[in-house]
Amino acid sequence: MDFTAQLQAYRARIEHGLDTLVPAATTRPARLHAAMRYSLEAGGKRLRPVLTLAAADLFGGIAESKIENLRPATAGTNTGPAAAGNGAKSKTQNALPVAVALECLHTYSLIHDDLPCMDNDDLRRGRPTAHKQFDEATALLAGDALLTLAFQLVGRHYAGSPALCAALTREIADAAGSEQLIGGQMEDLLAERKADATAAELEFIHRNKTGAMLTAALVAGGLCGGATESQLTALREAGRHLGLAFQIIDDILDATADTATLGKTAGKDARAGKTTYVKLHGLEASRRHAREQSDAAKADLARLPGGAPFLTTLVENMAARTR
Amino acid sequence: MDFTAQLQAYRARIEHGLDTLVPAATTRPARLHAAMRYSLEAGGKRLRPVLTLAAADLFGGIAESKIENLRPATAGTNTGPAAAGNGAKSKTQNALPVAVALECLHTYSLIHDDLPCMDNDDLRRGRPTAHKQFDEATALLAGDALLTLAFQLVGRHYAGSPALCAALTREIADAAGSEQLIGGQMEDLLAERKADATAAELEFIHRNKTGAMLTAALVAGGLCGGATESQLTALREAGRHLGLAFQIIDDILDATADTATLGKTAGKDARAGKTTYVKLHGLEASRRHAREQSDAAKADLARLPGGAPFLTTLVENMAARTR
Repeated sequence: MDFTAQLQAYRARIEHGLDTLVPAATTRPARLHAAMRYSLEAGGKRLRPVLTLAAADLFGGIAESKIENLRPATAGTNTGPAAAGNGAKSKTQNALPVAVALECLHTYSLIHDDLPCMDNDDLRRGRPTAHKQFDEATALLAGDALLTLAFQLVGRHYAGSPALCAALTREIADAAGSEQLIGGQMEDLLAERKADATAAELEFIHRNKTGAMLTAALVAGGLCGGATESQLTALREAGRHLGLAFQIIDDILDATADTATLGKTAGKDARAGKTTYVKLHGLEASRRHAREQSDAAKADLARLPGGAPFLTTLVENMAARTR
Repeated sequence: MDFTAQLQAYRARIEHGLDTLVPAATTRPARLHAAMRYSLEAGGKRLRPVLTLAAADLFGGIAESKIENLRPATAGTNTGPAAAGNGAKSKTQNALPVAVALECLHTYSLIHDDLPCMDNDDLRRGRPTAHKQFDEATALLAGDALLTLAFQLVGRHYAGSPALCAALTREIADAAGSEQLIGGQMEDLLAERKADATAAELEFIHRNKTGAMLTAALVAGGLCGGATESQLTALREAGRHLGLAFQIIDDILDATADTATLGKTAGKDARAGKTTYVKLHGLEASRRHAREQSDAAKADLARLPGGAPFLTTLVENMAARTR
């Protein structure tokens, strides 16, 4: 299967997983679940869950029988068909619940980030943000609920493989915690307030606000696939470089692309007086650093089984956007 | 040890656990960790973690060697002394990290509940609420971080006992999720908006907003202590009745006690036009129902080893407040 077909296949699996693993919009309280689904259904690239499924696919996988895959542990809380993705026989099937969990975490962080007390954004991917479509209290609770759902999914769907369940819980909780994802958000807020961030502060923000969850997505896939310690290290290193490349490229695009190409308002960072990679290092050095980071990510991926061709192409395509 | 001395001993252990297991206020980002600690240090009864430690104490406990108790799994994220509570040799020591996790979850729900878009409270336990002391964005992120920290603590400190780790993750995530704790918050908001809630709606709110986490606290203790399935069921039933009793008693006190006795503003619910148990059922029936629920909780506790004297007295003392 070529890259594009594989990417589409992963995304289709993820959409199916989101639909079946997240409580139905009719589940009480309906307004809360409708808001959770509204934000999840806004789409986006599904980058994090794609990384998880692709990383899991690199390895032999853990015996299906050991994982209570897509089978809810408690009767009362199931809301979708019990055997989501039936027929999709693949070892990445194991990784689907945690892939969905990562998308829930990403979506929660966007909902809370958009709130009036944070970035105060009215639009997200061309649609009203959650607090505009519903109201602030509902958006706040929908974010809280998506954050919690990530751990419900891990607790429920890996119950038959407790060591995997424990490792996934630790991995994604630490990545989402106060010293990584949320720490990055907080430092980002503080940097905005004082207008001038240093290079070290910007790297802290990028590494934690973006890099932590990309890394956790790759490592979670590796854990589901049964990667060895040294393979997990390669995934972790690749995630770190990918996260920095991703954020530098985002800053370059904000400074150079037009709004139509970007699919979101261009030049927003500069107008907001926000410290970006481009502002600190200039366009030339930023392009060079983005290239260095994506090359480093590719070097890490090359150490994985088969040279991880899908993930390598993903990194190359991302880097190609800035030329 | 008599009841009061035991309660004090549990609380001292919990304060110590909070201090050593939550990142120091100097950990980067310092403002975020300071806000998390500010809210945790506001005090309160520590009811949930007390329930956890007391429930764990009823049983034989799981071999210490199987639990990486208070020893962080990853070096980089430790911020306090590695061996918190050294010298406090007790089988409930095992239960301390999840007891702290439950207090983190409770505190996060209070911080978010106090935000302007929710209850918009300026004071909590006589001190400025988190968003008043810091700012809204910091309070939002501190709540998110405490919610996440609960799962970091479970993932980290029970790594050596993966089955326990997985069971605790599932138990507390489901209790805190969109169909229980957050669901109760959402229904509470919706009920306030329409001013008149039905008895069934009020019971849904009470059962989920309060009962779910009290139940999870007892069950988490039982899991740490090594309770059997039928003992876990007794704890679960006791938690359900305790949760309802607790909430009815809270409504009775709001209607009858003066502010000084209560330690918070009395009559607030009635003035806010909020539907309470007393408003729906009258004072007489409310007192009877509170008694029925606390008696039912005591009957469940009586099925546990030794008749669970500490927990039984806890329930009796709570019920006695309304007479």
